[in-house]
Amino acid sequence: MRVHELAEIVKGRVVGHAETRIERIADLDHAREGDIAYVDNEKFFESALASKASCLIVPNRDQFPGRTLIEVSNPKLAFALIGAALYPTDREPSIHPTAVVAATADIALTAYIGPHVTIGEYVTVGSHCVLHPNVVLYDGVTIGNRVILHAGVCIGADGFGYVRHELGYQKFPQIGTVVIEDDVEMGAYTCVDRAALGRTRIGRGTKLDNMVHVGHNCDIGERVVIAAQTGISGSVVIEDDVVIGGQVGFGDHTRVQKGAIIGSKAGILPGKIVRPGVWWGIPVQPLDQYKRMNAHMNRLPQMREEIKRLQEQVEELRQKLDADDADDAD
Amino acid sequence: MRVHELAEIVKGRVVGHAETRIERIADLDHAREGDIAYVDNEKFFESALASKASCLIVPNRDQFPGRTLIEVSNPKLAFALIGAALYPTDREPSIHPTAVVAATADIALTAYIGPHVTIGEYVTVGSHCVLHPNVVLYDGVTIGNRVILHAGVCIGADGFGYVRHELGYQKFPQIGTVVIEDDVEMGAYTCVDRAALGRTRIGRGTKLDNMVHVGHNCDIGERVVIAAQTGISGSVVIEDDVVIGGQVGFGDHTRVQKGAIIGSKAGILPGKIVRPGVWWGIPVQPLDQYKRMNAHMNRLPQMREEIKRLQEQVEELRQKLDADDADDAD
Amino acid sequence: MRVHELAEIVKGRVVGHAETRIERIADLDHAREGDIAYVDNEKFFESALASKASCLIVPNRDQFPGRTLIEVSNPKLAFALIGAALYPTDREPSIHPTAVVAATADIALTAYIGPHVTIGEYVTVGSHCVLHPNVVLYDGVTIGNRVILHAGVCIGADGFGYVRHELGYQKFPQIGTVVIEDDVEMGAYTCVDRAALGRTRIGRGTKLDNMVHVGHNCDIGERVVIAAQTGISGSVVIEDDVVIGGQVGFGDHTRVQKGAIIGSKAGILPGKIVRPGVWWGIPVQPLDQYKRMNAHMNRLPQMREEIKRLQEQVEELRQKLDADDADDAD
Repeated sequence: MRVHELAEIVKGRVVGHAETRIERIADLDHAREGDIAYVDNEKFFESALASKASCLIVPNRDQFPGRTLIEVSNPKLAFALIGAALYPTDREPSIHPTAVVAATADIALTAYIGPHVTIGEYVTVGSHCVLHPNVVLYDGVTIGNRVILHAGVCIGADGFGYVRHELGYQKFPQIGTVVIEDDVEMGAYTCVDRAALGRTRIGRGTKLDNMVHVGHNCDIGERVVIAAQTGISGSVVIEDDVVIGGQVGFGDHTRVQKGAIIGSKAGILPGKIVRPGVWWGIPVQPLDQYKRMNAHMNRLPQMREEIKRLQEQVEELRQKLDADDADDAD
Repeated sequence: MRVHELAEIVKGRVVGHAETRIERIADLDHAREGDIAYVDNEKFFESALASKASCLIVPNRDQFPGRTLIEVSNPKLAFALIGAALYPTDREPSIHPTAVVAATADIALTAYIGPHVTIGEYVTVGSHCVLHPNVVLYDGVTIGNRVILHAGVCIGADGFGYVRHELGYQKFPQIGTVVIEDDVEMGAYTCVDRAALGRTRIGRGTKLDNMVHVGHNCDIGERVVIAAQTGISGSVVIEDDVVIGGQVGFGDHTRVQKGAIIGSKAGILPGKIVRPGVWWGIPVQPLDQYKRMNAHMNRLPQMREEIKRLQEQVEELRQKLDADDADDAD
Repeated sequence: MRVHELAEIVKGRVVGHAETRIERIADLDHAREGDIAYVDNEKFFESALASKASCLIVPNRDQFPGRTLIEVSNPKLAFALIGAALYPTDREPSIHPTAVVAATADIALTAYIGPHVTIGEYVTVGSHCVLHPNVVLYDGVTIGNRVILHAGVCIGADGFGYVRHELGYQKFPQIGTVVIEDDVEMGAYTCVDRAALGRTRIGRGTKLDNMVHVGHNCDIGERVVIAAQTGISGSVVIEDDVVIGGQVGFGDHTRVQKGAIIGSKAGILPGKIVRPGVWWGIPVQPLDQYKRMNAHMNRLPQMREEIKRLQEQVEELRQKLDADDADDAD
């Protein structure tokens, strides 16, 4: 594609040779002729000036005289959009012959179903979905449009629920379902369990990294981002636009409100309500409170010294007072 | 099934219309005609009174006059048992044509082997087992009766053992096996590694959630419950009836005694013995000790204030004493 | 094989019957006739003396008079090497008929490709590789020689990168690749994501346990060991010979220097440089610093007592001083 065509996609302004052909995206350091790269940070201006890219996406044309540029307010976003245009992730619609698809499943004609995928009874898969190898959709699951499921994503396995009795554990029925809304992407081996009763939901535009666990009856909102290996117990509600780091753990029945950001490795106790703001630690607390507490802890050695010093001073005072008393008594 | 038939299953007492037909289980709020629901907590009595369920499972008939009831001492357990009767999880015994089963494997005639399952040489799978898609049983593994393995469960991969030498790592032989006893259930992608020498064991009636890792040579007892993403290093012993939260990590050669409950995200140091009681934190400690320590930490800002105040007071006293001495000297 | 043949493999010295046939390896307690076992620790000398093994691998011949021995400086390493000789892990070179291999993939003739494996376009798999069931190699990935990938290992899924805009998240292009060098072994369900641009690398001789997550653009050096369920964010550099425990979490753009050992469950903040030494905790700190801090925290109850005592003493002093003043004033 030519520079002016790419600029149109991102509503950017062309500076220089609008007819230059662009074939690939690249980072500044590795770009060669035919590549487009982006720079959005002054730190990288030097790399940008030295870059062999045929076109740069920049926030401000003035810093790069003589170069072919696309000027936009958000170069990284423009680069991502141009990347999507140059490297379409859409696969040729098809169902791989090794996939096992139940006769009652309803698969959109534009979907791509990869090798060794298993799709159960009464499953729905929307248009332009991409299901990578070994994805497993248990019976009755609903997948929206433009959903990308990486290798081995497992939707609709039984939730983890048992009732204890004298002899052991009786399985609690897991007869609910799972709904994955449009534009969701999930990393390899991420699991979303079916609801016991009712449904587990992943909202529109939400992105889950690899090996995320979502328990039964969770309701995850729209445009939520969850990094790798985070685990979410049953009946957790996460509202729209929440951002969650990796290896976070949620106790059951917690609720995370819109506007909350939860740092990696945090732990949230069952039933907790996490309000807007940045949260950190085990158990989770507001980041600034965590930092204050940390500062206090780092001052522990000093506190101990201060206490020792006080003990000495008090002992000195006592001795002095005793001595004075003795003097007085004389 | 009719109410009196369900009541018989759970040894409950029928109140009202014993002949009412029940077709589904449901929660109180979503129940419709033909549904059975349960209530075991006063919090939900109001929902129960408003519920459209055709039959309620209750702990006490007196609170629900005019309703068709099954009265039992443990309504949740009764509900689970009735759910199991209405929704049998048993699958039609079969081996899916895409499954790869070694000629030497011994699969019970009543087992269900799902799509894309791989079963190695000399494996035994007991009666009424359900192996969901993509389960992998390496060579020589033994699976008991009525075992449920969700998608991608992997039994018998090599344990993680190497010997360091000058040039790198030499693999330590992983030639032992794995034994999974009766009535075990494992969530998606849970892995149980084979023993180096000897065997790794998962005891009867034990339930593992999704993405649990059990290392080589572990001995997990009967009726143990382990939540998602917990990791267990090599040669760990977990005795019967232990309850373990999610994302817990066990160092190698630890032993957890019967009667122990370990909270989510806990970390257990190698070689540690965890005695009966509730345990928490990294490294793990008794919950009440953890709470005391936490209370102490929360008092740190106050302690710091107290030290400052003491420093001022001591300084005041010193000045006063010095002034008095000066007076005396006059 | 005969004892003298095994001794040759490990360059050990034979004591006793060099012609004894050895058929199996075993641990000291379970060894029977025809087995070889090892002992490298005085703790186990008694077990060794009682062992029924036909041959013992020992560090010093003098402690085991009358036994058939192989004397070596590192008995565990010798045992591992002998195990490798008696139980070759090499599989008959083959591509299982259920495997899906792209026409453009280049698979070495000596490789073993297990059931339900998926290999994408332009993938290279080196000689003597073993790919267990359900391994997924996305397009363009390179696998070196003698690499062992356990069940479900996933190489080359898209990295987790998005750009936020007003309406949600735009996928950042993930068009780089992954290079796995020679002699790497990975446990079940371990995932190595492809680079956004450029490549993700796992260095020669590195060993990853089960369910490890390696994000896009990471560079993991040679002979690195990483235990189960550890998660590594994007663009992390781990230098050669680093040792990392289980359930560790790395923020993006961290660098771990050669000579570092990181304890299980540690958390490393984004951008951090981890220098040589032993590291522990969340956030990670040198182990001895962590221990000091822990000791301080354990002294908190005592510190609180000391402050109380000081408060009483100061109050006493004040009262005494006031009383003296009053006396003086009389």
